[in-house]
Amino acid sequence: MNPDILKERRNATFDVEKLTHILDGSPERTRRKREIETMVFNDPDFQEEDPNFLSRSERYDQAVRKSAQMIQKLREYGIADPDEILIYKSLVLKNNHEAMGLHYAMFLPTIHSQCDPQQLKKWIPLLESNQVVGTYAQTEMGHGTHLRGLETTATYDPATQEFVLNSPTISSIKWWAGGLGKTSNHAIVLAQLFSHGHSHGLHAFIVPIRHMSTHEPLPGIVVGDIGPKFGFSEVDNGFLKLENVRIPRENMLMKHAKVEPDGSYVKPASTKLTYGTMVFIRSLIVGQSALSLAKACTIVIRYSVVRHQSEIRAGEPEPQILDYQTQQYKLFPLLATAYAFKFVGQYMKATYNRIIGDISQGDLTELPELHAMSAGLKAFTTWSANSAIEVCRMSCGGHGYSCSSALPDIYVQFTPTCTYEGENTVMMLQTARYLLKSYRQVKAGQQLSGIVSYLNEHERVQPQPVSARPTVVDLNNLSSLAEVYKLRAAILVELAAKSIQQELQSRKSQEDAWNNSSIDLVRASDAHCHYIVVKLFTDKLGEIGDTAIHSVMSTLALLYALHGIKNNSGDFLQAGLLNVPQILQVSVRIKELLAQLRPNAVALVDAFDFPDNMLKSVLGRYDGNVYENLFEWARRSPLNRTEVHESFHKYLKPLRAKL
Amino acid sequence: MNPDILKERRNATFDVEKLTHILDGSPERTRRKREIETMVFNDPDFQEEDPNFLSRSERYDQAVRKSAQMIQKLREYGIADPDEILIYKSLVLKNNHEAMGLHYAMFLPTIHSQCDPQQLKKWIPLLESNQVVGTYAQTEMGHGTHLRGLETTATYDPATQEFVLNSPTISSIKWWAGGLGKTSNHAIVLAQLFSHGHSHGLHAFIVPIRHMSTHEPLPGIVVGDIGPKFGFSEVDNGFLKLENVRIPRENMLMKHAKVEPDGSYVKPASTKLTYGTMVFIRSLIVGQSALSLAKACTIVIRYSVVRHQSEIRAGEPEPQILDYQTQQYKLFPLLATAYAFKFVGQYMKATYNRIIGDISQGDLTELPELHAMSAGLKAFTTWSANSAIEVCRMSCGGHGYSCSSALPDIYVQFTPTCTYEGENTVMMLQTARYLLKSYRQVKAGQQLSGIVSYLNEHERVQPQPVSARPTVVDLNNLSSLAEVYKLRAAILVELAAKSIQQELQSRKSQEDAWNNSSIDLVRASDAHCHYIVVKLFTDKLGEIGDTAIHSVMSTLALLYALHGIKNNSGDFLQAGLLNVPQILQVSVRIKELLAQLRPNAVALVDAFDFPDNMLKSVLGRYDGNVYENLFEWARRSPLNRTEVHESFHKYLKPLRAKL
Repeated sequence: MNPDILKERRNATFDVEKLTHILDGSPERTRRKREIETMVFNDPDFQEEDPNFLSRSERYDQAVRKSAQMIQKLREYGIADPDEILIYKSLVLKNNHEAMGLHYAMFLPTIHSQCDPQQLKKWIPLLESNQVVGTYAQTEMGHGTHLRGLETTATYDPATQEFVLNSPTISSIKWWAGGLGKTSNHAIVLAQLFSHGHSHGLHAFIVPIRHMSTHEPLPGIVVGDIGPKFGFSEVDNGFLKLENVRIPRENMLMKHAKVEPDGSYVKPASTKLTYGTMVFIRSLIVGQSALSLAKACTIVIRYSVVRHQSEIRAGEPEPQILDYQTQQYKLFPLLATAYAFKFVGQYMKATYNRIIGDISQGDLTELPELHAMSAGLKAFTTWSANSAIEVCRMSCGGHGYSCSSALPDIYVQFTPTCTYEGENTVMMLQTARYLLKSYRQVKAGQQLSGIVSYLNEHERVQPQPVSARPTVVDLNNLSSLAEVYKLRAAILVELAAKSIQQELQSRKSQEDAWNNSSIDLVRASDAHCHYIVVKLFTDKLGEIGDTAIHSVMSTLALLYALHGIKNNSGDFLQAGLLNVPQILQVSVRIKELLAQLRPNAVALVDAFDFPDNMLKSVLGRYDGNVYENLFEWARRSPLNRTEVHESFHKYLKPLRAKL
Repeated sequence: MNPDILKERRNATFDVEKLTHILDGSPERTRRKREIETMVFNDPDFQEEDPNFLSRSERYDQAVRKSAQMIQKLREYGIADPDEILIYKSLVLKNNHEAMGLHYAMFLPTIHSQCDPQQLKKWIPLLESNQVVGTYAQTEMGHGTHLRGLETTATYDPATQEFVLNSPTISSIKWWAGGLGKTSNHAIVLAQLFSHGHSHGLHAFIVPIRHMSTHEPLPGIVVGDIGPKFGFSEVDNGFLKLENVRIPRENMLMKHAKVEPDGSYVKPASTKLTYGTMVFIRSLIVGQSALSLAKACTIVIRYSVVRHQSEIRAGEPEPQILDYQTQQYKLFPLLATAYAFKFVGQYMKATYNRIIGDISQGDLTELPELHAMSAGLKAFTTWSANSAIEVCRMSCGGHGYSCSSALPDIYVQFTPTCTYEGENTVMMLQTARYLLKSYRQVKAGQQLSGIVSYLNEHERVQPQPVSARPTVVDLNNLSSLAEVYKLRAAILVELAAKSIQQELQSRKSQEDAWNNSSIDLVRASDAHCHYIVVKLFTDKLGEIGDTAIHSVMSTLALLYALHGIKNNSGDFLQAGLLNVPQILQVSVRIKELLAQLRPNAVALVDAFDFPDNMLKSVLGRYDGNVYENLFEWARRSPLNRTEVHESFHKYLKPLRAKL
């Protein structure tokens, strides 16, 4: 063990293990997690070369192998609980993705939720025996978030009782679906349904794309890999061009809508329930934001106590870089963010389960709020974690650029969350739509409940003179800070509403008024989400009994809230929520909190409890023995397989003769 | 030509070609640039596969080939002007690096500037005949910015008149030098010089590392590639471990310091001049910030007029995504930033040349200011461009994640500028040191000249009541805005100075006071740099004669300045430089400016004049024919070389049988 990191651990003021239990949910869950870790890490089948040393084709090959192995082993070990499967997979996959990810995340759930009983009877055995490997082809080359814009067509032919699927344009080619390029032999294809010359909108169809035994593409199917990406090298995101592909009528997913043999169309009873899946996945992404940021923080904070550099006091040995105030100021607010998002993720998961329970009882009242919340928080947390991971990487000096740090992998694996499952700006605007609707309800005299109830409190939304209110804010009190965040959100919602109003008054249409106010709308959503995060972090403190942990968590929460105020001080000053002396005081307090957190920094990342074998970071090793392992890693680089690279003989040596 | 992009070009209000001349420096330079473009693009030797489709070893191979070819062709074509060489290379290299980059950037210049005449006589012929390919090995695994911390030793042995070089620890292994791993046969090694048991600090030595004809590592040399990185795949950044490596006394670079045959050490006359190279390289990096951001803006803005998505008005066709206010708000300030940095880069280059002229006349007075300015602006522009490039990438929706967009390459190629040639936070603190020194000089009654002369104006630095000053600011007047940026900088320098003072008053040492104020110091440097950028952009407008171009450049400059105020509104409010109604007005003005710039957006990126063959972006094509080319590119993906990947037979098919 590196003596610096050992010393750090001795200085911690709280019991790391107990904090891990809080993060995992219970001591029992931590125990079970470690049991699964032992299974995976002792399994010789999962010993593997660092994927960074492999070619794209080898990476893909390794990923398919792991996907296949996991299927067998999960059955073998009898791991069936969804949370445990998630843990198992994250340990096998480390900082990379699953080749068959979309098969599990989208293909299977869609089959289960949208097949009628007869279809289930056909498809489930094929799935369970792994005859069918599937993907979910929705996005097209030219069409993403706006589903009505999708161009793929499925035209019913009553003569043969088949659908004829086509990609009528280049931009209609299905694009991006994971596992579509090489892995899957079936795809659920989203297409515009036509029957008897009428359009019936978007529906889902099961399309066989590769031959079941040869795996060759079927007639009319042009399928392949979309090429190298920023990360995701092990996944064959694919394209699919459909040229008069005929599938039987029974391959339309018919639980809700139907096409009868004669071609007559039967509408679905309700469309609201499809909401649920999106909400669920977006809630999961909030958890991923926390996870990825927690990994990045673990690496950079451990490395920052091992790394000595430069000097603070002349003549003294080089200090640990975590002793620089600038380094603390970069990292501790991000550490606080990781904890905040962790708790937000827990809340989202619990809320989702509660509301899904209500829905199954027929009570849909909370669904719109949950939908708005999951959209906004997905955007808020992914944007925030995305830039935070890069700050962590760049706070490791040069070695943060080396793949040995794992930080490049963590970043490229994470960054697509800002775009997939709903582009972030679009998500923010969806939340804004809910906020504005709520605001208008208040204006119309309605009393709101739930998270937006702060919009009720009319008197607070009114602008006040700068000097009138701030005296009541206590900068050391989290509830008081949550309150100013709430007021900021309310004021920014009002500001966005006024912008729309002004646009309407200058004779703009509703739609143009909305577009011309969208900067303000995004800002309002952002403030709303920021408030929710501060509030949930504050609420979480109430659940923590252990005094030492409560104390350090309070410090983190305070730092999170004050740092957010400092970064958005214009908003708080502008709204008259805080005055200039208070803003100056915030800066002073932040410095105090940084110094207060310094002794617990390593313990706080240790509590995330990432085993070295999963983190796969030389810089983030638990034992702090960075440098010897960095050298050992580098020597394994493929370019070192020969002492002299062939390019010397091909290009460099001949160059001498010629000149 | 895509009709949407054609329409955009027709709507432009200015002559694109004339703006290109301004950016290039003159019509003649544009002409010559295009001549060189024709040379490169018509050269069949430079037809190549997209490096994204290659393995690391193939990428490196291709890069060495291009390095070797460029050496021959530049001679052949008689291109010797440094600017023209830079243009030529950037066209050949596109979004990637040069394998022999450090040979040209550091090895050659160091040989030229630090060899004595006898040494020059030996080495120049070896260099000119390409016998010697070199690199510059300074950074060690455990030591970067702080040069005194370097551990490599060079101990003089008078018995044999040799230096014995050693890497005494793991952390002393030379690390990161480009071209060190496989390409170079010599390295300039920075090592702590010992002679007669005395340490004489860091000196440079020419160390042969590979055999001149076999290219095998020499005895005592452990050399290799440091492994895969975030980008730079074509460069063999290397490690070098020295085990009692003996080199002749004459291999110490002896123009300034010397070791006599008997081991006596002769000190250098001055160390100040080494400043020059750093300043030069940092000035170049400012230009790279502009270049990389300009590329990213070109891609995303062209794509944003070709891409249609979602709806603003119900029932109408999907609008171009550049018609969304949120998209304009993301991109136009970045476009303004690219222009701003372009002009700052031009200014830095001119200033560098002027001051170098002064220095050659023995006048060093302006060097400290230039040094401080280049450090701060290097950090300011690279940080800013770094996050901006990612915003551009993520504003392309999903396709921004595809390597076909070129945006992943542009980002990973650019991001190390935040760390190399001086880590950005360290750079900001160096600038802060200069600012604080200047501030203290003013306090001591001195009158400052140059860029920091604003610190002279005592009365302005005093805090004033919020309502006292702002009435004089004209939000439509750039000089007036430059003035508030200047005042903001002055106030933040004062705030940092006060923080140090307070720390000292609570009995902290100078060094601890500095460290405990470093957040404020970085903030002051940032504000100082921001002021310089606004000022230089404003100054540049005075040089532009063409009315139409002047008008659009003014709009951009205004957007740059107002956007900076909006993002830092807390600073301006806190300092009482602007009041709340003015801040609200800033938001309104920004929206107007976005709308004003919209028709010229494509023309403004066209003026950067990147040929498709250099930009290498399917999304950023000049003709806007994105989708057909995206499909064509994807089909060339290596995973598509076979219809069925071997992993199907190895893992997926067997899986069925087993279950």
